[in-house]
Amino acid sequence: MPRQNALKLDLKEACVAAAHEVIAERGVEGLSLRDVARKLQVSHQAPYRHFPSRDHLLAEIMRRCFDQFAQYLDERPPADSPHVDLAHMGERYLQYAASHPLEYRLMFGTPWPEPAEHPELVKYAVHAFDVLRNALRTMHAGNDDREEIADLDALFIWSSMHGMASITQANVMSHLKLSKKVTKAAAAHMMHRMSLALPPEKT
Amino acid sequence: MPRQNALKLDLKEACVAAAHEVIAERGVEGLSLRDVARKLQVSHQAPYRHFPSRDHLLAEIMRRCFDQFAQYLDERPPADSPHVDLAHMGERYLQYAASHPLEYRLMFGTPWPEPAEHPELVKYAVHAFDVLRNALRTMHAGNDDREEIADLDALFIWSSMHGMASITQANVMSHLKLSKKVTKAAAAHMMHRMSLALPPEKT
Repeated sequence: MPRQNALKLDLKEACVAAAHEVIAERGVEGLSLRDVARKLQVSHQAPYRHFPSRDHLLAEIMRRCFDQFAQYLDERPPADSPHVDLAHMGERYLQYAASHPLEYRLMFGTPWPEPAEHPELVKYAVHAFDVLRNALRTMHAGNDDREEIADLDALFIWSSMHGMASITQANVMSHLKLSKKVTKAAAAHMMHRMSLALPPEKT
Repeated sequence: MPRQNALKLDLKEACVAAAHEVIAERGVEGLSLRDVARKLQVSHQAPYRHFPSRDHLLAEIMRRCFDQFAQYLDERPPADSPHVDLAHMGERYLQYAASHPLEYRLMFGTPWPEPAEHPELVKYAVHAFDVLRNALRTMHAGNDDREEIADLDALFIWSSMHGMASITQANVMSHLKLSKKVTKAAAAHMMHRMSLALPPEKT
């Protein structure tokens, strides 16, 4: 690649990395292209070469989060049944939320920049949801209303996963006098209950 | 009550009401005793008569949210079985979250002021959780490990409820190409799945 293009690419990636740092330090409300430029010690105008606005930079960061998250779910171990596959996916979901709290909050706890202007963000977010939706379409194969049931179950499962990922962070949790055993078993118990809730394996 | 006390009481209540307005306008980060005083057109020192710090005012507001929320759950219709009772509670939970978004976010989406200094906040928060925990202890009556199972199921159910309340607000929801039928049925479907997940009614 010509050196000029390599430099341009570096600046774009550097902006994304610096924006992550700004968000980690000051929250998403604190993100501005000016701060990103200051962190990189480049001119105030430099980030505009790649991002027409602060919202475009934020949308690009969110898009990458959804992409990374979907890949993380896709890397679950192979399974020989839809139930086992969903259990693997659930484990990966909670692992991702626990190990990437900033990215997780950006995806699901942050108001989006105007989505109509950021179709790539929408595309990658829908793709992440489709990982779950497709596993459920496989589970409900043969049902007349399989797309509808798959969507409903996807919302049920996503709710439970997102809820578990969120309440384990909630301040109230540490005051509920839950035993260590309960706290440790909570996610596995939820996965067990969910497998009872879903239609049994076809044998 | 002597007039002097009545005035004091009014100021305390007025501070709480004004703080709600400040939080609604600027978020919880924007809350300060100075802004509350300005809104009430009283001296900067006046709110300190009732609240030693901004965090004490915030803790009092959160405590009231948990109290109101627990009362809202307690006002569910009477039920003749634990399963029906949980279904009623789930409905009330989602109704509260939808109709009181600010209060809901304060309880479950906001870092708490240092809890050790606000024991009343902790007490009311635990009480709200106990509404769910007690219903589950009734369901699991007779089990040797009923307290443990009740706690585990309480975390499962709370996760699902909190997740559903949260994802319906998430920006990604509107882009998932879910049919109106699915969106409308999502909560009822989740409640149905959860009743399948729990031990069947004893007859």
